[in-house]
Amino acid sequence: MLDYSALSALAAVVREGSFERAARALHVTPSAISQRIRQLEERVGCALVIREQPCRATDTGRRLCQHVDHVRLLEQELQGALPALAPQGMARVPLPIAVNADSLATWAAPAIASFAAEHPVLMEVAVDDQDYTTEWLRAGAVLAAVTSSARPAPGCNSRPLGAMRYLAAASPAFVRRHFPDGVRAASLSRAPSLVFNAKDDLQARWVRRLCHRHVELPRHTLPSSQAFVTAALAGMGWGMQARELIAAQLAEGSLVELVPDTPLDVPLFWQHARAASAVLDALSREILAAAAASLLQR
Amino acid sequence: MLDYSALSALAAVVREGSFERAARALHVTPSAISQRIRQLEERVGCALVIREQPCRATDTGRRLCQHVDHVRLLEQELQGALPALAPQGMARVPLPIAVNADSLATWAAPAIASFAAEHPVLMEVAVDDQDYTTEWLRAGAVLAAVTSSARPAPGCNSRPLGAMRYLAAASPAFVRRHFPDGVRAASLSRAPSLVFNAKDDLQARWVRRLCHRHVELPRHTLPSSQAFVTAALAGMGWGMQARELIAAQLAEGSLVELVPDTPLDVPLFWQHARAASAVLDALSREILAAAAASLLQR
Repeated sequence: MLDYSALSALAAVVREGSFERAARALHVTPSAISQRIRQLEERVGCALVIREQPCRATDTGRRLCQHVDHVRLLEQELQGALPALAPQGMARVPLPIAVNADSLATWAAPAIASFAAEHPVLMEVAVDDQDYTTEWLRAGAVLAAVTSSARPAPGCNSRPLGAMRYLAAASPAFVRRHFPDGVRAASLSRAPSLVFNAKDDLQARWVRRLCHRHVELPRHTLPSSQAFVTAALAGMGWGMQARELIAAQLAEGSLVELVPDTPLDVPLFWQHARAASAVLDALSREILAAAAASLLQR
Repeated sequence: MLDYSALSALAAVVREGSFERAARALHVTPSAISQRIRQLEERVGCALVIREQPCRATDTGRRLCQHVDHVRLLEQELQGALPALAPQGMARVPLPIAVNADSLATWAAPAIASFAAEHPVLMEVAVDDQDYTTEWLRAGAVLAAVTSSARPAPGCNSRPLGAMRYLAAASPAFVRRHFPDGVRAASLSRAPSLVFNAKDDLQARWVRRLCHRHVELPRHTLPSSQAFVTAALAGMGWGMQARELIAAQLAEGSLVELVPDTPLDVPLFWQHARAASAVLDALSREILAAAAASLLQR
């Protein structure tokens, strides 16, 4: 079998970001950590850790860390069945998942939080664009992901969650100032838009559907779901806003749709490592229930 | 002088993330972009772009991009003085800054948004931990930053903004369940804490001050200011919450301080590139005014 003391050392370095902090967390010396990882690297035949500030896993290192996380989940299940194995009670195990920012800012956070409050886990939530969270699964960096990709990553199951509805919204003053003659390609090419980050193509997709062609949009970049709403309210730009996040603003009229009734629906999926553990299954149930209550179902 | 068509190509590739999108934005062919960057790399003598998905700048490439941003700001000022230079009106120029997540979720977003609504800029806001935003300045990736570091980065001015107040907070049920005998090192080593990401050491700092020693904390990782509050409300863990973000929850009693009257105040600074431009000065004024109204002043 593999050397699990070395694998634990690797997982600790990647989680903690340094050999010193990993040593402290595992109650050993930094040189013991360093030696275990070197031996593991010799056995695997390639580097597992990029020794930077903070330390990061190589692709191979990430796959090994995912394996450790998975084995820990299975161990925890065993301890549930054989309490004698863990006389001091079950240790919390890391459960790494990836979620898109708007889901985390709305329906997903309460589901994750109420699950975590009742299960012996330590959630490690990574945030990325919904078109990229599957990469985290594929790279072995997480055990489950909320993603826009229906096609299961290797070794994963994929289940539909429903669609997140986005509205192209701005303040009424912004619309009057930048779209006095309506929302057309010419005005869109001058009016500043809001994008979450370079990966966010929702604005471009909405414009392509509206104008039937690509329009080069001036873009403010603002990677915060709250700031995105604040920015729209202050007239900084227009952007695709998660409807759930701006319900109050739409109702009071401080934000309006650029073009009435032109929502963009983004179907989301829950992908999770197939070799099931009871803990991951419980998280899946919470996620699916929260999505069913909040996302658009067909 | 430097070849500014090549520098613009470089900046576009880094901003857009690919040679194809950069070509579309600049209305040239991808091979023209590629050729300009190759020539620039030959002249500088090192790689400027890491050709991945998405493309990223090397350290040297980032410095050149910062230089381009700076020159664009100066050009814009010149156009303000000599309108004949820009008969079609001023083009918006990119203004890259770095801000910590909690500032962006609270006082900084309205300041940035109202500034951006009135100036011909395209904000590129990067989010990082307040202890790391200075690195963005130092690396030349941004022109200004909200940071916890008072010492000016090379070529920058540093101005105090006041302190952001954090409270160690959790739900009353969480406190009863995990701290029945008070908040001590032993209970802290078992009760799950919330951290924003691996860089977030506020929880560890608060515990060190309380217990006068290092305590290894079980940690959930949750990189979203909203989700952080949601998680605390649901009893997922305790964490250092920005007081401004949980004022309502404290007032209604759904969140409480773990130990009454033990705030952690994090002094923040505004650092900006020294060679001033009127636009950057205007942003500085908005940021300083908003901070003065929201952050703790001595």
